Amino acid sequence: MKKETIAIEFKKIQEEICSSISDLDGKCTFESDKWERKEGGGGDTRVLQNGNIFDKAGVNFSEVFGPITDKMKTAFTFEAESFYATGVSIVMHPTNPFMPIIHMNIRYFELPGKTWWFGGGIDLTPIYVDENEAKYFHQELKKTCDRYDTNYYPKFKNWADDYFYIPHRKETRGIGGIFFDHLNGDDKDSIFEFVCAVGRTFANTYCEIIKNKKEKTYTTQNIEWQSKRRSRYVEFNLVYDRGTKFGLETDGRVESILMSMPPVAKWHYNFVPEIGSEEEHTSGFLKKGKAWI
Amino acid sequence: MKKETIAIEFKKIQEEICSSISDLDGKCTFESDKWERKEGGGGDTRVLQNGNIFDKAGVNFSEVFGPITDKMKTAFTFEAESFYATGVSIVMHPTNPFMPIIHMNIRYFELPGKTWWFGGGIDLTPIYVDENEAKYFHQELKKTCDRYDTNYYPKFKNWADDYFYIPHRKETRGIGGIFFDHLNGDDKDSIFEFVCAVGRTFANTYCEIIKNKKEKTYTTQNIEWQSKRRSRYVEFNLVYDRGTKFGLETDGRVESILMSMPPVAKWHYNFVPEIGSEEEHTSGFLKKGKAWI
Repeated sequence: MKKETIAIEFKKIQEEICSSISDLDGKCTFESDKWERKEGGGGDTRVLQNGNIFDKAGVNFSEVFGPITDKMKTAFTFEAESFYATGVSIVMHPTNPFMPIIHMNIRYFELPGKTWWFGGGIDLTPIYVDENEAKYFHQELKKTCDRYDTNYYPKFKNWADDYFYIPHRKETRGIGGIFFDHLNGDDKDSIFEFVCAVGRTFANTYCEIIKNKKEKTYTTQNIEWQSKRRSRYVEFNLVYDRGTKFGLETDGRVESILMSMPPVAKWHYNFVPEIGSEEEHTSGFLKKGKAWI
Repeated sequence: MKKETIAIEFKKIQEEICSSISDLDGKCTFESDKWERKEGGGGDTRVLQNGNIFDKAGVNFSEVFGPITDKMKTAFTFEAESFYATGVSIVMHPTNPFMPIIHMNIRYFELPGKTWWFGGGIDLTPIYVDENEAKYFHQELKKTCDRYDTNYYPKFKNWADDYFYIPHRKETRGIGGIFFDHLNGDDKDSIFEFVCAVGRTFANTYCEIIKNKKEKTYTTQNIEWQSKRRSRYVEFNLVYDRGTKFGLETDGRVESILMSMPPVAKWHYNFVPEIGSEEEHTSGFLKKGKAWI
C-alpha cells in the first residue's frame, strides 16, 4: 500500500462527495481552490456557498509532506525528520435549522521509514436533536464499522463522545458519531478499506438526513437558535479541535483550515433556553455516553 | 497596600465606567450578574445588550482566591499553594461599524507571602481605521503613561503590538494600544496609581471616540465588513488571548470569560476586500510597529 495510492483514493472520495452534495443542493456547485505548500505538497479546497440547501459546505483534500518544521515539533512530539500526510476533511452548514451540521474527516499520516497511521471520524451536530435521525445516523456508522471489526463501533463511538466535547460548556458538540486515530497494524489494506468505507458512508447517510428535512419550515426563532448553536461549533473548533490547532500552529493554509467556521454565529450573554422549549430539549441531549442505538 | 484596597478601588472603577457608558448609550443600563466561585471569591459581571449605541458591552469585576488547583498548575507554572487575583475586564461592541470595538483590562495578582504583580492594557479594534481617531487614542494613552514613567508608553505600545496579534492571519487585532504584565517594584503605591489611571483613561477616551462617530451613517456593506472583522476578534480571543485560555482551562465562569465575544460574527471563505476599497484600506493598517503618534 503506497502512500500515492491512498492519496489517489482520497481524492476520488472528495470528487464523489462533491458530486453527491452539489446534486443534492441543486443550485450551486463547488468552486475549486487549488493551493500549494511551499515546503511540499498542497491541496484542493472545494467550497459551495449560498446554495439552495447549504449556506456553506466545504470539502478539503490535501496531500502535504516535507521536513518536520520547528513549529511542528512544538505542536507535536515527533521523533522524525520528515512527514507525509493526506486527507479529506468536510464541514457542512445547511441553511435550514432542522438540518444538522456535519463533519467528516479521513486522514493518513506517515513518518517515512518509521511508522504510519490512519485516523478519521464523522460526527453530527443537530441544531434541534431528532432522535430518529440520530438513531439512523449511528446505525449507518455501526453498519460500516461492523463490516470490518465489531469492536470498532463501540470503541470509536466512545472516542467521539470524548473528542467532540466542549469542557468549558460541559456539553458535547452534537450527538457524536465515530472518531479514531493512530489506527495501524499488520493488515494495512484492510484498515485502508475501512477508512475509505467511512469516507463513502458520509454522502449517502447525510443526503438521506437532509432529504428527510427538506419540507420542514422554520421561523426566525429557529434561526436565532441555530446561530447560537453555531457559536458553540466555533468554540469547539478554535479552542479544542486538534486538526485546527495543529494547522494554525504550524502555519497551515488558514482559509482551508477555517473553512469549518459557520457562515454566521451569535453570542448572547448567558442565554438559557426556556423551560419546556425545543431548544431546552436539545440541550438536554448534549451529554456524553448516550446510546443512540 | 493591602489587596482589599486594590479590589475596592477596582470595583469603584467598574462602577464609574458603567455609569459613563450607560449615560453615553442613553437607552440601556448595565444588568448586574453577581456570581460566586466555590473555591473562593466571585465577581460581578455587568452587561448591557441591544442599547442605542452598543450591541453588547460588558464590564467584569472579579476577586478570586484560594488554593492553586491542578488545572491552574497545568495552565501556568506556579510555585505556590494559593493565589489571589482581582481585576476589571471590559469589551464593548458598538452597533455602528464606524465605532471601534474596545477592550480594557486591569488586574492584580498575588501569591501570598511570595510575590505580586499588576497587569493591564487597553486596545482599540476599529472596523474601519480612522487615522485621527487612532492618533487621539494613542495620545491619550501616552499622556496617562507619561504621568508615571516616560518609558511606559513606548514599551507598553510595543508589547500591545506583539500581544494583540493574530499569527495565523499575519495581522494585528486592531490599532493596538498598551499592554503590560508582571509590573512590580519597590513603589507599589505608584504602580497601583498608574494601573488605576489606565482604568480611568478608558471611559473618557472611548466616550470621546464614540461621540465623534454618532452622526455617521452606515450601509449593509459596512455591517457585513463589521461581521467579518468581528470574526477575527473571535479568532484572537479563542485561540490566543491568555486570559480567555487561562479562564477556560481552569474552569472559570464561562459566561463572564466569553462576554468578550461579539453578538454576531461571520466567516466567508477566502474573503478578500476589493482593491481600493475602504475595507482594503483598513486591512493595510493591521500591521505591527505602526507609530500612530
